[in-house]
Amino acid sequence: MASFEIDTIVQSLSEIRKEWRASQKRSREPGGREFPSRDALAEVMDALKGALFPMRLGPTDLRHESEDFYVGHTLDTALHTLLAQARLEIRYQHRHQAITETEVEQRAVETITGLANSLPHIRSMLDSDVLAAYRGDPAAQTVDEVLLCYPGVLAMIYHRIAHELYTRDLPLLARIAAEMAHSQTGIDIHPGATIGPSFFIDHGTGVVIGETAVIGERVRIYQAVTLGAKSFPTDNEGSLQKGLPRHPIVEDDVVIYAGATILGRVTLGKGCVIGGNVWLTEDVPAGCVVTQARSQDTPRTNCASSSGI
Amino acid sequence: MASFEIDTIVQSLSEIRKEWRASQKRSREPGGREFPSRDALAEVMDALKGALFPMRLGPTDLRHESEDFYVGHTLDTALHTLLAQARLEIRYQHRHQAITETEVEQRAVETITGLANSLPHIRSMLDSDVLAAYRGDPAAQTVDEVLLCYPGVLAMIYHRIAHELYTRDLPLLARIAAEMAHSQTGIDIHPGATIGPSFFIDHGTGVVIGETAVIGERVRIYQAVTLGAKSFPTDNEGSLQKGLPRHPIVEDDVVIYAGATILGRVTLGKGCVIGGNVWLTEDVPAGCVVTQARSQDTPRTNCASSSGI
Amino acid sequence: MASFEIDTIVQSLSEIRKEWRASQKRSREPGGREFPSRDALAEVMDALKGALFPMRLGPTDLRHESEDFYVGHTLDTALHTLLAQARLEIRYQHRHQAITETEVEQRAVETITGLANSLPHIRSMLDSDVLAAYRGDPAAQTVDEVLLCYPGVLAMIYHRIAHELYTRDLPLLARIAAEMAHSQTGIDIHPGATIGPSFFIDHGTGVVIGETAVIGERVRIYQAVTLGAKSFPTDNEGSLQKGLPRHPIVEDDVVIYAGATILGRVTLGKGCVIGGNVWLTEDVPAGCVVTQARSQDTPRTNCASSSGI
Amino acid sequence: MASFEIDTIVQSLSEIRKEWRASQKRSREPGGREFPSRDALAEVMDALKGALFPMRLGPTDLRHESEDFYVGHTLDTALHTLLAQARLEIRYQHRHQAITETEVEQRAVETITGLANSLPHIRSMLDSDVLAAYRGDPAAQTVDEVLLCYPGVLAMIYHRIAHELYTRDLPLLARIAAEMAHSQTGIDIHPGATIGPSFFIDHGTGVVIGETAVIGERVRIYQAVTLGAKSFPTDNEGSLQKGLPRHPIVEDDVVIYAGATILGRVTLGKGCVIGGNVWLTEDVPAGCVVTQARSQDTPRTNCASSSGI
Amino acid sequence: MASFEIDTIVQSLSEIRKEWRASQKRSREPGGREFPSRDALAEVMDALKGALFPMRLGPTDLRHESEDFYVGHTLDTALHTLLAQARLEIRYQHRHQAITETEVEQRAVETITGLANSLPHIRSMLDSDVLAAYRGDPAAQTVDEVLLCYPGVLAMIYHRIAHELYTRDLPLLARIAAEMAHSQTGIDIHPGATIGPSFFIDHGTGVVIGETAVIGERVRIYQAVTLGAKSFPTDNEGSLQKGLPRHPIVEDDVVIYAGATILGRVTLGKGCVIGGNVWLTEDVPAGCVVTQARSQDTPRTNCASSSGI
Amino acid sequence: MASFEIDTIVQSLSEIRKEWRASQKRSREPGGREFPSRDALAEVMDALKGALFPMRLGPTDLRHESEDFYVGHTLDTALHTLLAQARLEIRYQHRHQAITETEVEQRAVETITGLANSLPHIRSMLDSDVLAAYRGDPAAQTVDEVLLCYPGVLAMIYHRIAHELYTRDLPLLARIAAEMAHSQTGIDIHPGATIGPSFFIDHGTGVVIGETAVIGERVRIYQAVTLGAKSFPTDNEGSLQKGLPRHPIVEDDVVIYAGATILGRVTLGKGCVIGGNVWLTEDVPAGCVVTQARSQDTPRTNCASSSGI
Repeated sequence: MASFEIDTIVQSLSEIRKEWRASQKRSREPGGREFPSRDALAEVMDALKGALFPMRLGPTDLRHESEDFYVGHTLDTALHTLLAQARLEIRYQHRHQAITETEVEQRAVETITGLANSLPHIRSMLDSDVLAAYRGDPAAQTVDEVLLCYPGVLAMIYHRIAHELYTRDLPLLARIAAEMAHSQTGIDIHPGATIGPSFFIDHGTGVVIGETAVIGERVRIYQAVTLGAKSFPTDNEGSLQKGLPRHPIVEDDVVIYAGATILGRVTLGKGCVIGGNVWLTEDVPAGCVVTQARSQDTPRTNCASSSGI
Repeated sequence: MASFEIDTIVQSLSEIRKEWRASQKRSREPGGREFPSRDALAEVMDALKGALFPMRLGPTDLRHESEDFYVGHTLDTALHTLLAQARLEIRYQHRHQAITETEVEQRAVETITGLANSLPHIRSMLDSDVLAAYRGDPAAQTVDEVLLCYPGVLAMIYHRIAHELYTRDLPLLARIAAEMAHSQTGIDIHPGATIGPSFFIDHGTGVVIGETAVIGERVRIYQAVTLGAKSFPTDNEGSLQKGLPRHPIVEDDVVIYAGATILGRVTLGKGCVIGGNVWLTEDVPAGCVVTQARSQDTPRTNCASSSGI
Repeated sequence: MASFEIDTIVQSLSEIRKEWRASQKRSREPGGREFPSRDALAEVMDALKGALFPMRLGPTDLRHESEDFYVGHTLDTALHTLLAQARLEIRYQHRHQAITETEVEQRAVETITGLANSLPHIRSMLDSDVLAAYRGDPAAQTVDEVLLCYPGVLAMIYHRIAHELYTRDLPLLARIAAEMAHSQTGIDIHPGATIGPSFFIDHGTGVVIGETAVIGERVRIYQAVTLGAKSFPTDNEGSLQKGLPRHPIVEDDVVIYAGATILGRVTLGKGCVIGGNVWLTEDVPAGCVVTQARSQDTPRTNCASSSGI
Repeated sequence: MASFEIDTIVQSLSEIRKEWRASQKRSREPGGREFPSRDALAEVMDALKGALFPMRLGPTDLRHESEDFYVGHTLDTALHTLLAQARLEIRYQHRHQAITETEVEQRAVETITGLANSLPHIRSMLDSDVLAAYRGDPAAQTVDEVLLCYPGVLAMIYHRIAHELYTRDLPLLARIAAEMAHSQTGIDIHPGATIGPSFFIDHGTGVVIGETAVIGERVRIYQAVTLGAKSFPTDNEGSLQKGLPRHPIVEDDVVIYAGATILGRVTLGKGCVIGGNVWLTEDVPAGCVVTQARSQDTPRTNCASSSGI
Repeated sequence: MASFEIDTIVQSLSEIRKEWRASQKRSREPGGREFPSRDALAEVMDALKGALFPMRLGPTDLRHESEDFYVGHTLDTALHTLLAQARLEIRYQHRHQAITETEVEQRAVETITGLANSLPHIRSMLDSDVLAAYRGDPAAQTVDEVLLCYPGVLAMIYHRIAHELYTRDLPLLARIAAEMAHSQTGIDIHPGATIGPSFFIDHGTGVVIGETAVIGERVRIYQAVTLGAKSFPTDNEGSLQKGLPRHPIVEDDVVIYAGATILGRVTLGKGCVIGGNVWLTEDVPAGCVVTQARSQDTPRTNCASSSGI
Repeated sequence: MASFEIDTIVQSLSEIRKEWRASQKRSREPGGREFPSRDALAEVMDALKGALFPMRLGPTDLRHESEDFYVGHTLDTALHTLLAQARLEIRYQHRHQAITETEVEQRAVETITGLANSLPHIRSMLDSDVLAAYRGDPAAQTVDEVLLCYPGVLAMIYHRIAHELYTRDLPLLARIAAEMAHSQTGIDIHPGATIGPSFFIDHGTGVVIGETAVIGERVRIYQAVTLGAKSFPTDNEGSLQKGLPRHPIVEDDVVIYAGATILGRVTLGKGCVIGGNVWLTEDVPAGCVVTQARSQDTPRTNCASSSGI
């Protein structure tokens, strides 16, 4: 039987943590976790999914005639758990500043109340996404199949909630929620991205949508599409400048086929179509079709018609 | 402490559900879930994995000499759970038509009996897939490693079962099973796809194989390969035509390297090799090698030899 | 109610297992699992994550002042569980050779003791990875967000442990651990790959890093980058030759943008930059920038400057 | 390693089951459990406890303002689970007779609807029991302590529900529920017993109350009190006659101290007091005190006063 | 399918709760549970058991050399959970009075710190109890068997902790803990009872020990022994007077055999022996033996010798 | 927030453990648990209950036609777990003596094989107990109710298995199993007690049956009956003599009513009846009735008839 040198290893790990904390200018004060919990948020997200779609994503033994009881009870529990997580993030945001507990509470309540009140709107948006997927995929047989089986829809359920958290100044909770969707679906949407109704992502693995992307209505994209940044401007001291608009604007009714990469603050005009694997770093006027034909040469832009690729 | 306006939110969500159901021409009748359950199916799939490979994917304390007891007990439970889910899907399929409970039962029993009887065949096919992976990957050290660690093999366990469900007219259960594999492996195989023995997917993230794809024996593909549709024909009213053959036919012994995209009902002839990142929308004769050499220009097709890329 | 022919199916499955075992030259002897367990290893990996980052990835109710108690208790349990798994793998490695239980024990203890002692070093390396991510992504707001939310960091936690297992001759446990990360993040790093400090993978879905790849310090890569093999040499009998160096060497400070594919034992020199979607099978000198400009033609190599893509 | 003769043991056990079934005149037909499930009922009882006392026995994170949502959702789920169990018991009751599924359904619905409608009454009765305990025990400090900590109250929650099941002709479910209470509290109340409001059992271990006992209002009993049967009349064939009144009648305001044994269909008149360890098989007039003084001789009955023992 | 009148029942239950709260003079204010949680305390008690006896009642995979890590981590978690429960009870105690959060915190910390510091003493006391059981029961074969299997020892682990809670003014938590032991063992010890070292209860079912009982060293009692109150004095208004000494004093080295009942504030002198089923309401001098010989007549007191019954 | 002196408490507890181990002459050597685990045994007992009565105490979704698969799989797992526990107990028994691992293994295998082979016999005995309960209780309506609801039957399932463990020299495992039954039912049967077929315990709370008791066929006993020891002979050094016959012999067809206490190695002759609360320390001839009539005076023995009390 082995006798590991547990004491020594514990000691070494403790010293490395101390160094790290020193390098991060943190004092090691007694106390518990001052940071939101992934597990707690996972419970909240599951509960909200159930509250939004009770008969499809709620408990299997739920019955129509008592949906509202379930929704009410589930929301109450989930929102109060989320409130507790919001307090943790707000305190964390102010870990180097003064903030009173009263201010923390006020901000947390305001934020989560806002999120709660937006849930009906979120459900409406998601209904439009479900319909868009049903209409956009020849393999889809019913809207119920779409809701239960399409990773793109699952990713949007998480995103539309995460985006609310992000715009209400809880970027960390938003990001944790977004990564849950990423891990399950392979679709990586930054919670900052603004996405209109009736959005459809097919297959989805490898999709990346950046923080400042803006997407209109009825947009359709396929697997491995990137809406990314082209370069990262640095400030005078060489640090990255954070928060600048640096991802594409995609107007209404655009379609982007699999593997296309669109980089930088370019605009894809209303109704244009971007072919598979196309690499784009410039604006595309409304109604144009950008393809690579059969060969891999310069993308060909054709703005007369908008037939599919 | 916050007091959310739970009553108001519950009311709004209820109204949005009503609107949705009206738009979907559904009446809200009392009663429980009329729809298969993802959790129930997940249990079934886990049990079938164990029954197919008891000493590798079954319980850790299983012993050789009582494998058959385990397999028999597990199958009996799993098949009856699956039968219950089949009933739910069959009733759902007929939600706008008349069907007697006797007919439901008859179809459900017929279907799941058929699936049950095909399990030995499925195991044989999977054995061929495991061997193909072992032979095809220089990093593979044993067949056991392949079975336990290769996402491509996991995806095929799900697919070969899901395909049986699909061909026996349970497309929804099939699809749910396929998405479980997609979520775990990043490999998205539509359950309608027909795949021969000794199939090997390496790495696998981003692979997409469409509903009407047909794949022969001893085919090998790498990550991010797409076997997709080129365009979606619409009918006179502008709706997508569903179910038409629209994905590639891949004949025996073909190899498709990472990132290649093959679109439409094209045929890749026996033994041909498609290089990485190649974009193809036309047939390739048997024995040919399609590559992009070093540059990104037009794919070069060379039909004299079939040496690896 | 259906009565499945369970007995018949059990019998058929049993025969197929017999055939398989015969083909694999295995005798069916009484006894239990002789193979490591994925579930056991999953517990170990969770515990090690907690022991390495107690206040972030440990239990939510942990407190600073008793971190060391938690770390010590968790390590002790996890290391002994890992020791048991190591014994299983060592016995499995010698299933066709003679090995005494004493030798098994000696090797297992040596191996896991070595791993245990390397944990402080692993933590240091991971700290450098966290900082690299924070500095490299304009969307990252704090190091804590990076640790909790970045799939690239999660993949590296698994990899740095898996790599220790691999170099200490437990390739199977290493591989199982690597696949856990692959399934959660879509990032597929073979445990054999050698990776220096301050490594950052952004987004990550679809990244593949091969067994013999060697990566220097401060390297940054994006989603869907492949560091793969170009061809697989076979020996005289046509079998793949296993273990040869066949993946790229990436020197310090290299950046590889999304979708780039680098194949074969090529060297990317210090500080060079590989643009998105570039396909490379040759060496790149230090300091060069390889891009595809706006079009998809031959990659353009520019070695005078190294401005971002 | 042992190799047990599992096959042989399985075979022997199978034969013994066959013999048992033959002796019980049962045929072994294919099919599942035709018998209520203890686990399912345990869930129902837990849910009903929570629905009856939401802020004390419901989930710890419940909040006043959403009690009704919780109660409604919990009741709906619990009652439908109970309905399914009721069907099982009704079919079981008729296993030797013809009964249509329609009749089963009708009886099950009628029964569980009746139970559901009686829940408010049950809660009122339990409130009176809680008050009785609080008033009767000098150690009780609050009504909340009584509800959470007193085994006598817990036993009455189970009993008042079990009694409803019993009187509505589901004696088996009733009995299973009663045994759950017995196991947790050591208090064995047959679900057939009729018990008035404001009933208080202190300590409770060893209390036995028989099937046909009738207990009035404001009765108080202590540990190890038996209200049992004196003898069991047999019919002409020597079998026990089932269902005859054979347990005591206890009128209002009676107190029975620890260890007293009252056997047979005797009546303890209003307000009488039975001392500890007294053994009684005859009626006691209203207002009398039966004690054993200091010695163990004949119980002394004093009907002038009713001071405590 | 039944449609229960859930709305109506929910409404009725809600009204009954309102009536109850009105009768208890409680306002229904928004907010969550203001009351300790049984589940939380159950976790604490399990953790404390493990911390007190790590190699016997701790986790099965614990190892000697890391006991202290386990004990430290477990204590830290358990004590903070207990602290949270203490706050709940203290606030509850003052629900009709003013108390600041600072006062709550101060009292909670003081109390639980006191309990924490008494744990080594508790362990010593329990060691003496284990030895007493081993020495007192001819069937006991090892001290380990005693610790693992004797309900009397389990009851004392709970009691010695519960008594600390009680004496530190957390009577509700104390009582909940006591009832956990009662439910598992059938032994009902009020947490107020004062019990010296080396106490042994054999078998135990039905034992009742009252709130103000005082028990010396090396006392031994058997199943169904009651140390109870004789009568409950009421105050001028007829309410029970709470907290008066009303249970027996049992001096050192006393033995009380099964089923004996001792009522009231009597004293059993040092070394006396009370026979089985004896009913006692008077003092017994030191060294006396009280038995009922073969018959059930007046107990016979023999103060010359102290041979066993 | 409190900062407990965890380090100090951990240190104190560690010292007390050291003292205890010193007093028990144990060295503190590195290593894990050398003692059977209650949790492991609980799993074994649950599995054996299911294997003995698959359609009643097995999983709820079990079906008749695959009972044998379930029984075989369950037995195999349970028996190997039990084997591992047996090794632990055997090593523990020899902790102060030399024993080779081979001897441990041999004894463990022999013992558990013996137990396994006795399972069919145990099932037969239990069938007789179930019938006895059904016939003996006027409230019992079916044999299934008896099996599911009667604590006396549950206690006998545990006892008949525990007794096998005891007679095969695994007294510790036997005792742990017995205490599980005691905790659930309030019935305390020492695993050493020898009990014939068709044994019925009604209600059961408070029953105590000692280690050397011998009970014939068709015996019936009620709650709170004690079959105990009268006195404990000590050896020359004042230590208790362990293992001597010291509990009653109860011959066939005896009935013992509630609360009766029988102490010492007395014999209750065939067919005799012992009335409620009777206190007996002498032999009773066959066919006699011992009662206390209405008063509490000397038990009256009537050997002419055997009518019930």
